[in-house]
Amino acid sequence: MVSLEALRKKVLEQTKKKLSEAYTEKDRYVIQAIEALDDVDAVFNLLVARVREWYSLHFPELNTLVKDHEDYLNLVVTLGKRDNYNEEAVKAIVGKKLAPVVMNAVKDSSGTDISDDDIRMVQELARIALEARDYRKELVDYIDKVMEDVAPNVKYLAGPLLGARLIAKAGGLKKLALLPASTIQVLGAEKALFRHLTKGSRPPKHGILFQHPWVRNAKRWQRGKIARSLAAKLAIAAKEDYFGGKFIADKLKAELEERVKEIREKYREPPRKKTRGTRKRKRR
Amino acid sequence: MVSLEALRKKVLEQTKKKLSEAYTEKDRYVIQAIEALDDVDAVFNLLVARVREWYSLHFPELNTLVKDHEDYLNLVVTLGKRDNYNEEAVKAIVGKKLAPVVMNAVKDSSGTDISDDDIRMVQELARIALEARDYRKELVDYIDKVMEDVAPNVKYLAGPLLGARLIAKAGGLKKLALLPASTIQVLGAEKALFRHLTKGSRPPKHGILFQHPWVRNAKRWQRGKIARSLAAKLAIAAKEDYFGGKFIADKLKAELEERVKEIREKYREPPRKKTRGTRKRKRR
Repeated sequence: MVSLEALRKKVLEQTKKKLSEAYTEKDRYVIQAIEALDDVDAVFNLLVARVREWYSLHFPELNTLVKDHEDYLNLVVTLGKRDNYNEEAVKAIVGKKLAPVVMNAVKDSSGTDISDDDIRMVQELARIALEARDYRKELVDYIDKVMEDVAPNVKYLAGPLLGARLIAKAGGLKKLALLPASTIQVLGAEKALFRHLTKGSRPPKHGILFQHPWVRNAKRWQRGKIARSLAAKLAIAAKEDYFGGKFIADKLKAELEERVKEIREKYREPPRKKTRGTRKRKRR
Repeated sequence: MVSLEALRKKVLEQTKKKLSEAYTEKDRYVIQAIEALDDVDAVFNLLVARVREWYSLHFPELNTLVKDHEDYLNLVVTLGKRDNYNEEAVKAIVGKKLAPVVMNAVKDSSGTDISDDDIRMVQELARIALEARDYRKELVDYIDKVMEDVAPNVKYLAGPLLGARLIAKAGGLKKLALLPASTIQVLGAEKALFRHLTKGSRPPKHGILFQHPWVRNAKRWQRGKIARSLAAKLAIAAKEDYFGGKFIADKLKAELEERVKEIREKYREPPRKKTRGTRKRKRR
Protein backbone atom coordinates (compact mmCIF):
# COMPACT_ATOMS: atom_id res chain seq x y z
CA MET A 1 0.00 0.00 0.00
CA VAL A 2 1.23 3.45 -0.82
CA SER A 3 1.65 5.64 2.19
CA LEU A 4 -0.25 8.91 2.30
CA GLU A 5 2.99 10.82 2.50
CA ALA A 6 4.34 9.20 -0.67
CA LEU A 7 1.10 9.87 -2.49
CA ARG A 8 1.10 13.48 -1.41
CA LYS A 9 4.65 13.85 -2.64
CA LYS A 10 3.82 12.33 -6.00
CA VAL A 11 0.85 14.59 -6.57
CA LEU A 12 2.91 17.60 -5.61
CA GLU A 13 5.61 16.62 -8.07
CA GLN A 14 3.13 16.15 -10.87
CA THR A 15 1.57 19.53 -10.21
CA LYS A 16 4.97 21.15 -10.24
CA LYS A 17 5.86 19.46 -13.49
CA LYS A 18 2.66 20.69 -15.06
CA LEU A 19 3.28 24.20 -13.81
CA SER A 20 6.82 24.02 -15.11
CA GLU A 21 5.64 22.92 -18.52
CA ALA A 22 3.21 25.78 -18.64
CA TYR A 23 6.05 28.11 -17.81
CA THR A 24 8.47 26.53 -20.22
CA GLU A 25 6.59 27.83 -23.19
CA LYS A 26 9.09 30.16 -24.70
CA ASP A 27 6.39 32.54 -25.91
CA ARG A 28 6.04 33.83 -22.38
CA TYR A 29 9.48 35.34 -22.73
CA VAL A 30 8.40 36.99 -25.96
CA ILE A 31 5.44 38.55 -24.18
CA GLN A 32 7.60 39.84 -21.33
CA ALA A 33 10.16 41.21 -23.74
CA ILE A 34 7.69 43.12 -25.91
CA GLU A 35 6.00 44.55 -22.83
CA ALA A 36 9.40 45.51 -21.45
CA LEU A 37 9.99 47.33 -24.73
CA ASP A 38 6.90 49.44 -24.15
CA ASP A 39 7.98 50.09 -20.57
CA VAL A 40 11.43 51.19 -21.68
CA ASP A 41 9.92 53.52 -24.28
CA ALA A 42 7.73 55.08 -21.61
CA VAL A 43 10.76 55.49 -19.35
CA PHE A 44 12.80 57.07 -22.12
CA ASN A 45 10.08 59.56 -23.03
CA LEU A 46 9.53 60.55 -19.42
CA LEU A 47 13.23 61.11 -18.75
CA VAL A 48 13.92 62.93 -22.01
CA ALA A 49 11.09 65.36 -21.34
CA ARG A 50 12.45 66.03 -17.85
CA VAL A 51 16.04 66.51 -19.05
CA ARG A 52 14.90 68.92 -21.76
CA GLU A 53 12.90 71.02 -19.31
CA TRP A 54 15.63 71.03 -16.68
CA TYR A 55 18.53 71.76 -19.03
CA SER A 56 16.48 74.50 -20.68
CA LEU A 57 16.94 76.62 -17.56
CA HIS A 58 20.58 76.81 -18.56
CA PHE A 59 20.33 76.63 -22.36
CA PRO A 60 16.73 77.18 -23.53
CA GLU A 61 17.61 77.60 -27.21
CA LEU A 62 18.95 74.07 -27.57
CA ASN A 63 15.53 72.52 -26.99
CA THR A 64 14.14 73.75 -30.30
CA LEU A 65 17.41 73.47 -32.23
CA VAL A 66 18.13 69.80 -31.56
CA LYS A 67 15.02 67.75 -32.17
CA ASP A 68 16.71 64.37 -32.02
CA HIS A 69 16.45 63.05 -28.47
CA GLU A 70 19.64 61.02 -28.50
CA ASP A 71 21.69 63.90 -29.91
CA TYR A 72 20.26 66.20 -27.26
CA LEU A 73 21.08 63.79 -24.45
CA ASN A 74 24.57 63.21 -25.81
CA LEU A 75 25.22 66.95 -25.87
CA VAL A 76 24.12 67.24 -22.24
CA VAL A 77 26.12 64.23 -21.08
CA THR A 78 29.37 64.88 -22.92
CA LEU A 79 29.48 68.69 -22.85
CA GLY A 80 27.39 69.81 -19.90
CA LYS A 81 27.69 73.53 -19.33
CA ARG A 82 27.43 75.94 -22.25
CA ASP A 83 31.02 77.07 -21.60
CA ASN A 84 32.27 73.63 -22.58
CA TYR A 85 30.70 73.73 -26.03
CA ASN A 86 33.11 73.85 -28.94
CA GLU A 87 32.43 73.46 -32.62
CA GLU A 88 34.45 70.27 -32.97
CA ALA A 89 32.67 68.40 -30.18
CA VAL A 90 29.23 69.65 -31.17
CA LYS A 91 29.87 68.65 -34.78
CA ALA A 92 30.73 65.12 -33.70
CA ILE A 93 27.27 64.77 -32.18
CA VAL A 94 24.82 66.77 -34.28
CA GLY A 95 26.65 66.85 -37.62
CA LYS A 96 28.28 69.71 -39.46
CA LYS A 97 25.05 71.26 -40.67
CA LEU A 98 23.57 71.94 -37.25
CA ALA A 99 26.81 72.56 -35.36
CA PRO A 100 27.33 76.23 -36.33
CA VAL A 101 23.71 77.03 -35.46
CA VAL A 102 24.15 75.50 -32.03
CA MET A 103 27.43 77.36 -31.49
CA ASN A 104 25.71 80.62 -32.40
CA ALA A 105 23.02 79.91 -29.84
CA VAL A 106 25.68 79.20 -27.22
CA LYS A 107 27.07 82.70 -27.64
CA ASP A 108 23.70 84.42 -27.43
CA SER A 109 21.88 82.18 -24.98
CA SER A 110 19.41 83.77 -22.59
CA GLY A 111 19.83 80.89 -20.13
CA THR A 112 21.05 81.28 -16.59
CA ASP A 113 24.34 80.19 -15.07
CA ILE A 114 24.25 76.74 -13.61
CA SER A 115 26.21 75.39 -10.66
CA ASP A 116 28.37 72.25 -10.77
CA ASP A 117 25.87 70.39 -8.60
CA ASP A 118 22.94 71.37 -10.80
CA ILE A 119 24.54 70.30 -14.05
CA ARG A 120 25.74 67.01 -12.57
CA MET A 121 22.19 66.04 -11.60
CA VAL A 122 20.90 66.82 -15.09
CA GLN A 123 23.76 64.91 -16.69
CA GLU A 124 23.20 61.86 -14.51
CA LEU A 125 19.55 61.76 -15.48
CA ALA A 126 20.44 62.12 -19.15
CA ARG A 127 22.89 59.24 -18.78
CA ILE A 128 20.16 56.98 -17.39
CA ALA A 129 17.91 57.93 -20.31
CA LEU A 130 20.68 56.99 -22.75
CA GLU A 131 21.16 53.65 -21.01
CA ALA A 132 17.46 52.96 -21.39
CA ARG A 133 17.83 53.70 -25.09
CA ASP A 134 20.84 51.38 -25.41
CA TYR A 135 18.92 48.69 -23.60
CA ARG A 136 16.05 49.13 -26.04
CA LYS A 137 18.37 48.33 -28.94
CA GLU A 138 19.55 45.14 -27.25
CA LEU A 139 15.95 44.23 -26.53
CA VAL A 140 15.00 44.56 -30.18
CA ASP A 141 17.83 42.19 -31.13
CA TYR A 142 16.75 39.78 -28.42
CA ILE A 143 13.12 39.77 -29.56
CA ASP A 144 14.29 39.17 -33.11
CA LYS A 145 16.23 36.12 -31.96
CA VAL A 146 13.53 34.64 -29.73
CA MET A 147 10.85 35.17 -32.34
CA GLU A 148 12.98 33.25 -34.85
CA ASP A 149 12.92 30.40 -32.36
CA VAL A 150 9.28 30.62 -31.25
CA ALA A 151 7.34 31.74 -34.29
CA PRO A 152 9.50 32.00 -37.43
CA ASN A 153 6.52 32.09 -39.78
CA VAL A 154 4.72 34.87 -37.92
CA LYS A 155 8.00 36.75 -37.65
CA TYR A 156 8.68 36.50 -41.39
CA LEU A 157 5.24 37.85 -42.25
CA ALA A 158 4.74 40.50 -39.59
CA GLY A 159 8.28 41.36 -38.56
CA PRO A 160 9.67 40.50 -35.11
CA LEU A 161 8.14 43.34 -33.10
CA LEU A 162 4.65 43.27 -34.59
CA GLY A 163 4.72 39.48 -34.38
CA ALA A 164 5.63 39.62 -30.71
CA ARG A 165 2.87 42.14 -30.11
CA LEU A 166 0.33 39.86 -31.75
CA ILE A 167 1.40 36.98 -29.48
CA ALA A 168 1.20 39.26 -26.44
CA LYS A 169 -2.25 40.59 -27.42
CA ALA A 170 -3.58 37.09 -27.99
CA GLY A 171 -2.08 35.89 -24.69
CA GLY A 172 0.39 33.38 -26.09
CA LEU A 173 1.29 31.60 -29.30
CA LYS A 174 -1.21 28.81 -28.72
CA LYS A 175 -4.05 31.28 -28.31
CA LEU A 176 -2.94 33.20 -31.39
CA ALA A 177 -2.87 29.93 -33.37
CA LEU A 178 -6.47 29.25 -32.37
CA LEU A 179 -7.81 32.68 -33.29
CA PRO A 180 -9.77 33.13 -36.51
CA ALA A 181 -8.26 35.52 -39.04
CA SER A 182 -11.10 37.99 -38.51
CA THR A 183 -10.09 38.35 -34.86
CA ILE A 184 -6.40 38.69 -35.68
CA GLN A 185 -7.34 41.48 -38.09
CA VAL A 186 -8.75 43.62 -35.26
CA LEU A 187 -6.45 42.55 -32.37
CA GLY A 188 -5.70 45.72 -30.46
CA ALA A 189 -8.84 47.50 -31.70
CA GLU A 190 -11.07 46.01 -29.01
CA LYS A 191 -12.57 49.35 -28.09
CA ALA A 192 -13.61 50.18 -31.64
CA LEU A 193 -14.93 46.65 -32.10
CA PHE A 194 -17.02 46.92 -28.96
CA ARG A 195 -18.32 50.30 -30.06
CA HIS A 196 -19.30 48.67 -33.33
CA LEU A 197 -21.12 45.81 -31.64
CA THR A 198 -23.00 47.93 -29.12
CA LYS A 199 -23.59 51.21 -30.85
CA GLY A 200 -23.49 50.20 -34.49
CA SER A 201 -20.59 52.42 -35.48
CA ARG A 202 -18.46 51.20 -38.38
CA PRO A 203 -16.31 48.18 -37.55
CA PRO A 204 -12.54 48.68 -37.19
CA LYS A 205 -10.49 47.76 -40.23
CA HIS A 206 -7.30 46.95 -38.35
CA GLY A 207 -5.88 46.92 -34.85
CA ILE A 208 -2.15 46.68 -34.33
CA LEU A 209 -1.84 45.30 -37.86
CA PHE A 210 -1.82 48.96 -38.77
CA GLN A 211 1.83 48.89 -37.71
CA HIS A 212 2.68 46.73 -40.72
CA PRO A 213 4.18 48.96 -43.40
CA TRP A 214 2.01 47.47 -46.14
CA VAL A 215 -1.12 48.52 -44.24
CA ARG A 216 0.20 51.81 -42.92
CA ASN A 217 1.61 53.01 -46.22
CA ALA A 218 -1.40 51.99 -48.26
CA LYS A 219 -4.10 54.38 -49.36
CA ARG A 220 -6.75 54.87 -46.72
CA TRP A 221 -9.43 52.93 -48.59
CA GLN A 222 -7.10 50.01 -49.35
CA ARG A 223 -6.01 49.43 -45.76
CA GLY A 224 -8.95 47.34 -44.62
CA LYS A 225 -8.56 44.95 -47.53
CA ILE A 226 -4.82 44.59 -47.08
CA ALA A 227 -5.23 44.07 -43.32
CA ARG A 228 -7.73 41.32 -43.99
CA SER A 229 -5.40 39.48 -46.38
CA LEU A 230 -2.49 39.90 -43.98
CA ALA A 231 -4.57 38.57 -41.09
CA ALA A 232 -5.59 35.54 -43.13
CA LYS A 233 -1.96 34.65 -43.86
CA LEU A 234 -0.93 35.35 -40.26
CA ALA A 235 -3.59 32.94 -39.02
CA ILE A 236 -2.07 30.21 -41.17
CA ALA A 237 1.47 31.17 -40.09
CA ALA A 238 0.58 31.04 -36.38
CA LYS A 239 -1.05 27.63 -36.76
CA GLU A 240 2.06 26.32 -38.52
CA ASP A 241 4.33 27.78 -35.83
CA TYR A 242 2.37 26.20 -33.03
CA PHE A 243 1.15 22.88 -34.47
CA GLY A 244 3.45 22.24 -37.40
CA GLY A 245 6.92 23.54 -37.46
CA LYS A 246 7.75 23.86 -41.14
CA PHE A 247 8.76 27.17 -42.65
CA ILE A 248 6.05 28.19 -45.08
CA ALA A 249 6.09 31.94 -44.62
CA ASP A 250 8.01 32.64 -47.83
CA LYS A 251 5.21 31.05 -49.83
CA LEU A 252 2.59 32.90 -47.78
CA LYS A 253 4.37 36.16 -48.27
CA ALA A 254 4.58 35.67 -52.03
CA GLU A 255 0.85 35.01 -52.20
CA LEU A 256 0.16 38.01 -50.02
CA GLU A 257 2.33 40.23 -52.19
CA GLU A 258 0.34 39.11 -55.20
CA ARG A 259 -2.92 39.96 -53.46
CA VAL A 260 -1.69 43.33 -52.26
CA LYS A 261 -0.67 44.18 -55.81
CA GLU A 262 -4.15 43.25 -56.98
CA ILE A 263 -5.76 45.44 -54.33
CA ARG A 264 -3.56 48.38 -55.24
CA GLU A 265 -4.49 48.08 -58.91
CA LYS A 266 -8.16 47.38 -58.49
CA TYR A 267 -8.84 50.12 -55.94
CA ARG A 268 -6.77 52.98 -57.28
CA GLU A 269 -9.45 55.56 -56.60
CA PRO A 270 -11.21 56.23 -53.32
CA PRO A 271 -14.68 54.73 -53.24
CA ARG A 272 -17.52 57.08 -54.06
CA LYS A 273 -19.37 58.43 -51.06
CA LYS A 274 -22.61 56.56 -50.69
CA THR A 275 -25.37 58.99 -51.53
CA ARG A 276 -28.36 56.98 -50.43
CA GLY A 277 -30.17 58.91 -47.72
CA THR A 278 -28.08 62.03 -47.88
CA ARG A 279 -30.79 63.98 -49.60
CA LYS A 280 -33.21 63.32 -46.83
CA ARG A 281 -30.78 64.58 -44.26
CA LYS A 282 -29.98 67.69 -46.24
CA ARG A 283 -31.22 70.91 -44.68
CA ARG A 284 -33.46 73.15 -46.66
CA MET B 1 21.46 110.54 -32.43
CA VAL B 2 21.32 106.87 -31.62
CA SER B 3 21.24 104.67 -34.65
CA LEU B 4 18.34 102.28 -35.05
CA GLU B 5 20.74 99.36 -35.04
CA ALA B 6 22.28 100.38 -31.71
CA LEU B 7 18.84 100.90 -30.19
CA ARG B 8 17.69 97.50 -31.37
CA LYS B 9 20.76 95.91 -29.87
CA LYS B 10 20.23 97.62 -26.55
CA VAL B 11 16.61 96.57 -26.29
CA LEU B 12 17.56 93.02 -27.17
CA GLU B 13 20.23 92.98 -24.48
CA GLN B 14 17.83 94.30 -21.87
CA THR B 15 15.25 91.69 -22.74
CA LYS B 16 17.87 88.98 -22.48
CA LYS B 17 19.03 90.26 -19.14
CA LYS B 18 15.47 90.24 -17.85
CA LEU B 19 14.91 86.73 -19.13
CA SER B 20 18.18 85.66 -17.60
CA GLU B 21 17.20 87.13 -14.24
CA ALA B 22 13.91 85.30 -14.36
CA TYR B 23 15.80 82.11 -15.03
CA THR B 24 18.43 82.74 -12.41
CA GLU B 25 15.94 82.23 -9.64
CA LYS B 26 17.29 79.16 -8.02
CA ASP B 27 13.83 77.91 -7.05
CA ARG B 28 13.33 76.81 -10.64
CA TYR B 29 15.99 74.18 -10.05
CA VAL B 30 14.13 73.06 -6.94
CA ILE B 31 10.97 72.62 -8.99
CA GLN B 32 12.76 70.62 -11.67
CA ALA B 33 14.47 68.45 -9.09
CA ILE B 34 11.33 67.56 -7.15
CA GLU B 35 9.50 66.78 -10.38
CA ALA B 36 12.44 64.66 -11.51
CA LEU B 37 12.09 62.80 -8.21
CA ASP B 38 8.51 61.89 -9.07
CA ASP B 39 9.59 60.86 -12.57
CA VAL B 40 12.34 58.64 -11.20
CA ASP B 41 9.91 57.03 -8.77
CA ALA B 42 7.53 56.28 -11.62
CA VAL B 43 10.39 54.81 -13.65
CA PHE B 44 11.52 52.65 -10.74
CA ASN B 45 8.03 51.29 -10.08
CA LEU B 46 7.46 50.50 -13.74
CA LEU B 47 10.78 48.68 -14.12
CA VAL B 48 10.51 46.78 -10.84
CA ALA B 49 7.08 45.48 -11.77
CA ARG B 50 8.40 44.32 -15.13
CA VAL B 51 11.50 42.63 -13.68
CA ARG B 52 9.38 40.82 -11.09
CA GLU B 53 6.96 39.52 -13.71
CA TRP B 54 9.72 38.52 -16.12
CA TYR B 55 11.99 36.85 -13.57
CA SER B 56 8.99 35.02 -12.12
CA LEU B 57 8.91 32.83 -15.23
CA HIS B 58 12.18 31.40 -13.93
CA PHE B 59 11.69 31.70 -10.18
CA PRO B 60 8.05 32.46 -9.29
CA GLU B 61 8.42 31.83 -5.55
CA LEU B 62 10.89 34.68 -5.06
CA ASN B 63 8.28 37.30 -5.87
CA THR B 64 6.29 36.70 -2.70
CA LEU B 65 9.28 35.85 -0.50
CA VAL B 66 11.29 39.01 -1.08
CA LYS B 67 9.03 42.04 -0.71
CA ASP B 68 11.81 44.61 -0.65
CA HIS B 69 12.31 45.88 -4.19
CA GLU B 70 16.01 46.68 -3.88
CA ASP B 71 16.80 43.28 -2.35
CA TYR B 72 14.88 41.59 -5.13
CA LEU B 73 16.70 43.52 -7.83
CA ASN B 74 20.05 42.86 -6.21
CA LEU B 75 19.37 39.12 -6.15
CA VAL B 76 18.53 39.19 -9.86
CA VAL B 77 21.54 41.30 -10.81
CA THR B 78 24.20 39.57 -8.72
CA LEU B 79 22.99 35.96 -8.84
CA GLY B 80 20.90 35.60 -11.98
CA LYS B 81 19.89 32.02 -12.56
CA ARG B 82 18.59 29.88 -9.69
CA ASP B 83 21.59 27.56 -10.07
CA ASN B 84 23.88 30.36 -8.94
CA TYR B 85 22.11 30.86 -5.62
CA ASN B 86 24.11 29.95 -2.53
CA GLU B 87 23.30 30.61 1.08
CA GLU B 88 26.26 32.92 1.62
CA ALA B 89 25.48 35.23 -1.27
CA VAL B 90 21.76 35.29 -0.56
CA LYS B 91 22.39 36.07 3.09
CA ALA B 92 24.52 39.05 2.14
CA ILE B 93 21.55 40.56 0.34
CA VAL B 94 18.38 39.57 2.21
CA GLY B 95 19.81 38.90 5.70
CA LYS B 96 20.20 35.66 7.62
CA LYS B 97 16.53 35.38 8.55
CA LEU B 98 15.18 35.22 5.00
CA ALA B 99 18.14 33.46 3.37
CA PRO B 100 17.26 29.84 4.32
CA VAL B 101 13.67 30.35 3.16
CA VAL B 102 14.89 31.59 -0.21
CA MET B 103 17.35 28.69 -0.51
CA ASN B 104 14.54 26.25 0.20
CA ALA B 105 12.47 27.83 -2.53
CA VAL B 106 15.42 27.52 -4.93
CA LYS B 107 15.46 23.74 -4.46
CA ASP B 108 11.73 23.30 -4.95
CA SER B 109 11.01 26.00 -7.50
CA SER B 110 8.33 25.35 -10.10
CA GLY B 111 9.92 27.87 -12.45
CA THR B 112 11.19 27.02 -15.90
CA ASP B 113 14.76 26.86 -17.14
CA ILE B 114 16.01 30.10 -18.57
CA SER B 115 18.56 30.65 -21.33
CA ASP B 116 21.64 32.83 -20.99
CA ASP B 117 20.15 35.39 -23.34
CA ASP B 118 16.89 35.55 -21.40
CA ILE B 119 18.50 36.04 -18.02
CA ARG B 120 20.90 38.67 -19.35
CA MET B 121 18.00 40.81 -20.59
CA VAL B 122 16.25 40.59 -17.22
CA GLN B 123 19.45 41.42 -15.37
CA GLU B 124 20.17 44.42 -17.56
CA LEU B 125 16.71 45.81 -16.89
CA ALA B 126 17.13 45.22 -13.15
CA ARG B 127 20.44 47.05 -13.30
CA ILE B 128 18.80 50.11 -14.86
CA ALA B 129 16.14 50.04 -12.14
CA LEU B 130 18.84 49.99 -9.47
CA GLU B 131 20.59 52.91 -11.12
CA ALA B 132 17.36 54.87 -11.03
CA ARG B 133 17.15 54.08 -7.32
CA ASP B 134 20.74 55.22 -6.71
CA TYR B 135 20.05 58.39 -8.63
CA ARG B 136 17.01 59.01 -6.44
CA LYS B 137 19.23 59.00 -3.34
CA GLU B 138 21.59 61.54 -4.90
CA LEU B 139 18.61 63.64 -5.89
CA VAL B 140 17.30 63.73 -2.32
CA ASP B 141 20.70 64.97 -1.11
CA TYR B 142 20.75 67.56 -3.86
CA ILE B 143 17.27 68.85 -3.02
CA ASP B 144 18.28 69.06 0.64
CA LYS B 145 21.26 71.22 -0.31
CA VAL B 146 19.43 73.52 -2.73
CA MET B 147 16.52 74.01 -0.34
CA GLU B 148 18.98 75.10 2.35
CA ASP B 149 20.12 77.74 -0.08
CA VAL B 150 16.75 78.79 -1.49
CA ALA B 151 14.28 78.47 1.37
CA PRO B 152 15.93 77.52 4.67
CA ASN B 153 12.92 78.50 6.76
CA VAL B 154 10.43 76.51 4.72
CA LYS B 155 12.85 73.59 4.69
CA TYR B 156 13.25 73.65 8.47
CA LEU B 157 9.51 73.60 9.03
CA ALA B 158 8.33 71.25 6.28
CA GLY B 159 11.42 69.19 5.53
CA PRO B 160 13.32 69.46 2.22
CA LEU B 161 11.05 67.31 0.04
CA LEU B 162 7.69 68.63 1.23
CA GLY B 163 9.12 72.14 1.12
CA ALA B 164 10.22 71.63 -2.47
CA ARG B 165 6.81 70.22 -3.36
CA LEU B 166 5.11 73.30 -1.89
CA ILE B 167 7.31 75.56 -4.00
CA ALA B 168 6.56 73.47 -7.09
CA LYS B 169 2.80 73.45 -6.44
CA ALA B 170 2.75 77.21 -5.90
CA GLY B 171 4.83 77.75 -9.06
CA GLY B 172 7.92 79.26 -7.42
CA LEU B 173 9.11 80.65 -4.10
CA LYS B 174 7.80 84.14 -4.84
CA LYS B 175 4.33 82.83 -5.53
CA LEU B 176 4.41 80.68 -2.40
CA ALA B 177 5.45 83.73 -0.37
CA LEU B 178 2.45 85.64 -1.67
CA LEU B 179 -0.10 82.92 -0.92
CA PRO B 180 -2.37 83.23 2.13
CA ALA B 181 -2.00 80.47 4.74
CA SER B 182 -5.46 79.16 3.92
CA THR B 183 -4.36 78.41 0.36
CA ILE B 184 -1.11 76.80 1.47
CA GLN B 185 -3.17 74.56 3.74
CA VAL B 186 -4.99 73.02 0.78
CA LEU B 187 -2.24 73.17 -1.90
CA GLY B 188 -2.45 69.91 -3.80
CA ALA B 189 -6.11 69.37 -2.89
CA GLU B 190 -7.45 71.51 -5.70
CA LYS B 191 -9.93 68.90 -6.82
CA ALA B 192 -11.50 68.53 -3.39
CA LEU B 193 -11.54 72.30 -2.98
CA PHE B 194 -13.31 72.75 -6.29
CA ARG B 195 -15.81 70.05 -5.36
CA HIS B 196 -16.43 71.98 -2.16
CA LEU B 197 -16.97 75.27 -3.96
CA THR B 198 -19.24 73.89 -6.66
CA LYS B 199 -21.10 71.06 -5.03
CA GLY B 200 -20.98 72.02 -1.38
CA SER B 201 -19.12 68.93 -0.18
CA ARG B 202 -16.95 69.38 2.91
CA PRO B 203 -13.82 71.45 2.30
CA PRO B 204 -10.45 69.64 2.26
CA LYS B 205 -8.48 69.83 5.50
CA HIS B 206 -5.09 69.43 3.89
CA GLY B 207 -3.44 68.92 0.54
CA ILE B 208 0.16 67.81 0.33
CA LEU B 209 0.65 69.05 3.91
CA PHE B 210 -0.70 65.61 4.77
CA GLN B 211 2.83 64.39 4.01
CA HIS B 212 4.11 66.15 7.11
CA PRO B 213 4.52 63.57 9.89
CA TRP B 214 2.75 65.79 12.45
CA VAL B 215 -0.35 65.86 10.27
CA ARG B 216 -0.17 62.30 9.01
CA ASN B 217 0.46 60.73 12.40
CA ALA B 218 -2.18 62.76 14.20
CA LYS B 219 -5.65 61.50 15.01
CA ARG B 220 -8.06 61.96 12.15
CA TRP B 221 -10.05 64.74 13.79
CA GLN B 222 -6.92 66.66 14.80
CA ARG B 223 -5.38 66.75 11.35
CA GLY B 224 -7.30 69.75 9.99
CA LYS B 225 -6.33 71.89 12.96
CA ILE B 226 -2.67 70.88 12.85
CA ALA B 227 -2.55 71.46 9.08
CA ARG B 228 -3.98 74.93 9.59
CA SER B 229 -1.35 75.86 12.19
CA LEU B 230 1.40 74.42 10.04
CA ALA B 231 0.19 76.36 7.00
CA ALA B 232 0.13 79.59 9.03
CA LYS B 233 3.76 79.14 10.06
CA LEU B 234 4.79 78.08 6.56
CA ALA B 235 3.26 81.25 5.13
CA ILE B 236 5.46 83.30 7.46
CA ALA B 237 8.50 81.16 6.68
CA ALA B 238 8.04 81.52 2.91
CA LYS B 239 7.69 85.29 3.19
CA GLU B 240 10.89 85.46 5.23
CA ASP B 241 12.74 83.26 2.72
CA TYR B 242 11.69 85.40 -0.22
CA PHE B 243 11.61 88.94 1.16
CA GLY B 244 13.72 88.78 4.31
CA GLY B 245 16.51 86.31 4.64
CA LYS B 246 16.83 85.81 8.38
CA PHE B 247 16.51 82.37 9.90
CA ILE B 248 13.40 82.42 12.08
CA ALA B 249 12.18 78.86 11.55
CA ASP B 250 13.44 77.58 14.92
CA LYS B 251 11.20 80.09 16.70
CA LEU B 252 8.29 79.26 14.40
CA LYS B 253 8.76 75.58 14.98
CA ALA B 254 8.79 76.00 18.76
CA GLU B 255 5.52 77.94 18.61
CA LEU B 256 4.04 75.35 16.34
CA GLU B 257 5.09 72.53 18.65
CA GLU B 258 3.36 74.32 21.49
CA ARG B 259 0.18 74.67 19.48
CA VAL B 260 0.22 71.04 18.31
CA LYS B 261 0.57 69.93 21.94
CA GLU B 262 -2.46 72.07 22.81
CA ILE B 263 -4.50 70.54 20.00
CA ARG B 264 -3.55 67.02 21.05
CA GLU B 265 -4.65 67.68 24.61
CA LYS B 266 -7.79 69.64 23.86
CA TYR B 267 -9.17 67.26 21.24
CA ARG B 268 -8.35 63.87 22.70
CA GLU B 269 -11.71 62.40 21.75
CA PRO B 270 -13.31 62.34 18.30
CA PRO B 271 -16.01 64.99 17.94
CA ARG B 272 -19.58 63.81 18.44
CA LYS B 273 -21.49 63.19 15.25
CA LYS B 274 -23.78 66.09 14.53
CA THR B 275 -27.34 64.87 14.93
CA ARG B 276 -29.20 67.89 13.59
CA GLY B 277 -31.27 66.89 10.62
CA THR B 278 -30.67 63.18 10.78
CA ARG B 279 -34.15 62.52 12.12
CA LYS B 280 -35.75 64.24 9.20
CA ARG B 281 -33.84 62.12 6.70
CA LYS B 282 -34.66 58.89 8.52
CA ARG B 283 -36.93 56.58 6.61
CA ARG B 284 -40.25 55.56 8.09
